[in-house]
Amino acid sequence: MTADRKAGQSMGSVFPHLITQDLPTMVSVKDADFSSVDAVFCCLPHGTTQDIIKGLPRHLKIVDLSADFRLRDIAEYEEWYGQPHSASDLQKEAVYGLTEISREDVKNARLVANPGCYPTSIQLPLVPLIKAKLIEHRNIIIDSKSGVSGAGRGAKEANLYSEIAEGIYSYGVTKHRHVPEIEQGLSDAAQSKINVSFTPHLMPMIRGMQSTIYVEMSQGVTMEDLYQQLRKSYEDEEFVKLLDKGVVPRTHNVRGSNYCFMNVFPDRIPGRAIIISVIDNLVKGASGQALQNLNIMLGYPENTGLLYQPLFP
Amino acid sequence: MTADRKAGQSMGSVFPHLITQDLPTMVSVKDADFSSVDAVFCCLPHGTTQDIIKGLPRHLKIVDLSADFRLRDIAEYEEWYGQPHSASDLQKEAVYGLTEISREDVKNARLVANPGCYPTSIQLPLVPLIKAKLIEHRNIIIDSKSGVSGAGRGAKEANLYSEIAEGIYSYGVTKHRHVPEIEQGLSDAAQSKINVSFTPHLMPMIRGMQSTIYVEMSQGVTMEDLYQQLRKSYEDEEFVKLLDKGVVPRTHNVRGSNYCFMNVFPDRIPGRAIIISVIDNLVKGASGQALQNLNIMLGYPENTGLLYQPLFP
Amino acid sequence: MTADRKAGQSMGSVFPHLITQDLPTMVSVKDADFSSVDAVFCCLPHGTTQDIIKGLPRHLKIVDLSADFRLRDIAEYEEWYGQPHSASDLQKEAVYGLTEISREDVKNARLVANPGCYPTSIQLPLVPLIKAKLIEHRNIIIDSKSGVSGAGRGAKEANLYSEIAEGIYSYGVTKHRHVPEIEQGLSDAAQSKINVSFTPHLMPMIRGMQSTIYVEMSQGVTMEDLYQQLRKSYEDEEFVKLLDKGVVPRTHNVRGSNYCFMNVFPDRIPGRAIIISVIDNLVKGASGQALQNLNIMLGYPENTGLLYQPLFP
Amino acid sequence: MTADRKAGQSMGSVFPHLITQDLPTMVSVKDADFSSVDAVFCCLPHGTTQDIIKGLPRHLKIVDLSADFRLRDIAEYEEWYGQPHSASDLQKEAVYGLTEISREDVKNARLVANPGCYPTSIQLPLVPLIKAKLIEHRNIIIDSKSGVSGAGRGAKEANLYSEIAEGIYSYGVTKHRHVPEIEQGLSDAAQSKINVSFTPHLMPMIRGMQSTIYVEMSQGVTMEDLYQQLRKSYEDEEFVKLLDKGVVPRTHNVRGSNYCFMNVFPDRIPGRAIIISVIDNLVKGASGQALQNLNIMLGYPENTGLLYQPLFP
Repeated sequence: MTADRKAGQSMGSVFPHLITQDLPTMVSVKDADFSSVDAVFCCLPHGTTQDIIKGLPRHLKIVDLSADFRLRDIAEYEEWYGQPHSASDLQKEAVYGLTEISREDVKNARLVANPGCYPTSIQLPLVPLIKAKLIEHRNIIIDSKSGVSGAGRGAKEANLYSEIAEGIYSYGVTKHRHVPEIEQGLSDAAQSKINVSFTPHLMPMIRGMQSTIYVEMSQGVTMEDLYQQLRKSYEDEEFVKLLDKGVVPRTHNVRGSNYCFMNVFPDRIPGRAIIISVIDNLVKGASGQALQNLNIMLGYPENTGLLYQPLFP
Repeated sequence: MTADRKAGQSMGSVFPHLITQDLPTMVSVKDADFSSVDAVFCCLPHGTTQDIIKGLPRHLKIVDLSADFRLRDIAEYEEWYGQPHSASDLQKEAVYGLTEISREDVKNARLVANPGCYPTSIQLPLVPLIKAKLIEHRNIIIDSKSGVSGAGRGAKEANLYSEIAEGIYSYGVTKHRHVPEIEQGLSDAAQSKINVSFTPHLMPMIRGMQSTIYVEMSQGVTMEDLYQQLRKSYEDEEFVKLLDKGVVPRTHNVRGSNYCFMNVFPDRIPGRAIIISVIDNLVKGASGQALQNLNIMLGYPENTGLLYQPLFP
Repeated sequence: MTADRKAGQSMGSVFPHLITQDLPTMVSVKDADFSSVDAVFCCLPHGTTQDIIKGLPRHLKIVDLSADFRLRDIAEYEEWYGQPHSASDLQKEAVYGLTEISREDVKNARLVANPGCYPTSIQLPLVPLIKAKLIEHRNIIIDSKSGVSGAGRGAKEANLYSEIAEGIYSYGVTKHRHVPEIEQGLSDAAQSKINVSFTPHLMPMIRGMQSTIYVEMSQGVTMEDLYQQLRKSYEDEEFVKLLDKGVVPRTHNVRGSNYCFMNVFPDRIPGRAIIISVIDNLVKGASGQALQNLNIMLGYPENTGLLYQPLFP
Repeated sequence: MTADRKAGQSMGSVFPHLITQDLPTMVSVKDADFSSVDAVFCCLPHGTTQDIIKGLPRHLKIVDLSADFRLRDIAEYEEWYGQPHSASDLQKEAVYGLTEISREDVKNARLVANPGCYPTSIQLPLVPLIKAKLIEHRNIIIDSKSGVSGAGRGAKEANLYSEIAEGIYSYGVTKHRHVPEIEQGLSDAAQSKINVSFTPHLMPMIRGMQSTIYVEMSQGVTMEDLYQQLRKSYEDEEFVKLLDKGVVPRTHNVRGSNYCFMNVFPDRIPGRAIIISVIDNLVKGASGQALQNLNIMLGYPENTGLLYQPLFP
């Protein structure tokens, strides 16, 4: 376990809820001995990540939770993150780890770019529908809502309790850094460039993410077709669940777990449908999917360490 | 002050935050003496409202906060509320009191139907844009988020703290009873029938409402045109504020006040725009607008009793 | 799995966060076949519990989560619960299951009365200190704070989100039904009657309970003595943890887990000390301790099913 | 209106909930022209305050909201605040502004030291009881609970939403800087030195403060005596309210207002009583009381600008 600012401290002093666990003291990355390590979760800020991973031994399996290897197009990375990419070879090697969609590629990967939380909640329902040509590529409107924990533990005025509790707002209207990642995934599925409308909102809650997605169905397609396609895509999946018809997914019901719950609803406007998906942004949207990916890379049962059920209430 | 279940109690025992105020004991409606009363706020469940108002003396000015007189089309009322309307004459007399839009009619009204909270947050930005023919009538997507207080004080499992806190969900997808009210207002503005996509979401907060509205601009129209139209519509209004360009409206910033803050943003999809409006659902979305209407009906300064500034943090 | 109002429903429809688990449909208690059942968790309202348990086959191991078998003194039960006790024989048979204190008795029990949440958080630190004669029996002041989930899922106005969020209050000042249970446990430890001051407060949070306990140390005793006694009492326990000196227990750090964290602090008033203990009221304060007890009764490893770590943030 | 980091900005950009008010742009303190100013609220960090106030013209009435002039004993200030006091003359001139207790002194004051939030909630009930010799000076146990806003708007990890929501903890056990202020006020009332036990707890709420105070009654005194004393002390006060017997004060019921609600309860331990007082820590605990003091200093009606009623729900 490595740390930067907190190197030398015990895990229990940084995260007191873990004091009961016998965990190693944190060391600085440069002092870590990787020779007896099989795999690494890399949870560093974008930019830093590239440099660290370049220096790691090649025998390591790596799941990277930053944004550094998610975008295939280096130019796009530079545009959205405001800095050049210094590890384009690693970028080419990296596999985008949206587990249920790219499980086969993850199996053989050495470096997995773990998806962002918003892109996970959005691509899981949309990719199968786009691949099956059931929805139009135009006018995909995504209104997402996220808990605050996605912003990390940095001390920012904007994320103080008194600023967040009892109110909501949209941030990064049309300009959130997850946009290119979402469009990359949907465009791949469509085999043509898709632009989406994406508006993230900050909710007064710690965990949880909902994407409410408004789509136009292709000519002649019905809501039932969408439902059946999603059923077929995910009926054998442990962590992605299409709910019974009419049942609304709630973030409460996936809190603390690796599940994604989703469903499809008819819209009042003829020819349109509404798709809702929910995840815990810190689990399926981050560390849970990372573990799921590593399990696959190492040949472990995919649900190892992921059997925690949702915490409700 | 009348009450049903709580007749005979003091206001301070029902709402202990008001114990410092010298308020009359609550009486049953049937025991109320309306002869020396000038005006009435009627805050009863739909259905009940009709019957009570029919029996009130004609000299009273009435602002009704229920849904009973909001829909001009009685058949539509019956369809959405599941019961026949028993006071169609009153319905014809009633003026729909979206203050900034129908101030002139409110002036001369005896009975004002106070708008619902969602319809207020949605019509205030959309009506001027539709009237000015700046946006298309098709594909208006409205994703609304509301605090829990809108559901009232009834004891329902769904609204317990443990069910609401730390999670969100959509309710009444496409079927919320405010739909016909919204469509009536927009269709009036358009002078043709408009169907909207409307999805309300329940937020873990007491007060506050945001509508995020996704629209297609008319041919040749720019976001700047939308901004200028809203500026023109509301620049002389005390309670409706178009924010500076780029500033995101937040429910935190109107909490406890009668303000509606709004703004317009460009969308990533060319030709589309995103409109955000926020209100306090209990004030501009209910009792505040009711008071604003009554002030107008009685010839008082419109902001009488409405100078409370937002409570932040 | 039995249910009353919800008999015939699937678990997933009552608790949608469990839809992924293959659980039996709920049946009415009277329709349950207990012949192939080894053990029962009884989670019924007080009063009802007595009658149901009287009718259960004698081969069953039972952990009862109600208050019905916690008080040895039937007269006291009747005084605090306002109804006669109809199963005094069962009461005599029942073992009070504060696991770490009465593990040996639990081993051989057929019927365990699972402690209340407040009594658990209070007795765990106080019983060893009283037994070791380190604190005075007089002037024990207990100021407890609890999340709302302790009140259950019943639809009560008092527990609505809008009534609970963003405020606190004390309820049942000096009259909470957990008082006799607390005094029984402390008096047993003291071998003389102890009266305590106990004030519970309701917090705007779902889970979590803290007891802040103000005690007078016995003549010549120091805070260090208290600390060492608690260390000795719990150093081999998996679920009860004395924190490092000076570290404040936080309910955040036990949320969703069966842990009790505690610590002792010096008071400004010479001769006094402050003890703080925290638990998750639904886990160590209810179902977690129940499972811990059943594990012991059945000879399973005590932590079976209890390895969930705290969910933070 | 002065500012340091934010000088040059409009109020609306710092606090967007105030954009509708026509407020002056903020200037640096050193650029402020005090010649046409009558009075000043000084809301600076302790330490800074002393230096700024020393430099202000003598014609100004000043209400200082920092801790710099609250402690009469400079040595005590230095001990608790870790720095020498550089304005002992001003300290001697300052009047401690617990309005209802020291209104006569405030009338003639030029410089008022506005009390801290905890000390306000604690002294209002205790000072009259101590003066009337109704409670013992020993074993006064104060368990206080505060919303997070008391910590200010500084960006600290500890006050992030994800650290605060859904949990509680005690901070500064026995060492909170409000201790000497509380003990000074109570000792003044007793005319002998009083040491109290004071434990503040942080609540997952923005505003609100409750002090639960456990006291020993003097020989022969009853709870009714305490109640009658408080009634007599506050029956003519607009902002301090003794509730009806048995009614529990709730922070919800004073939110956003300048009220202090209090009540007295019997304790289970004979001879003891429990006192509960609640305030909004930002209003009666800070800016509201400051305004109340200034109104008195300037000869205005004491409630000018303070008629905001509690915001509930």
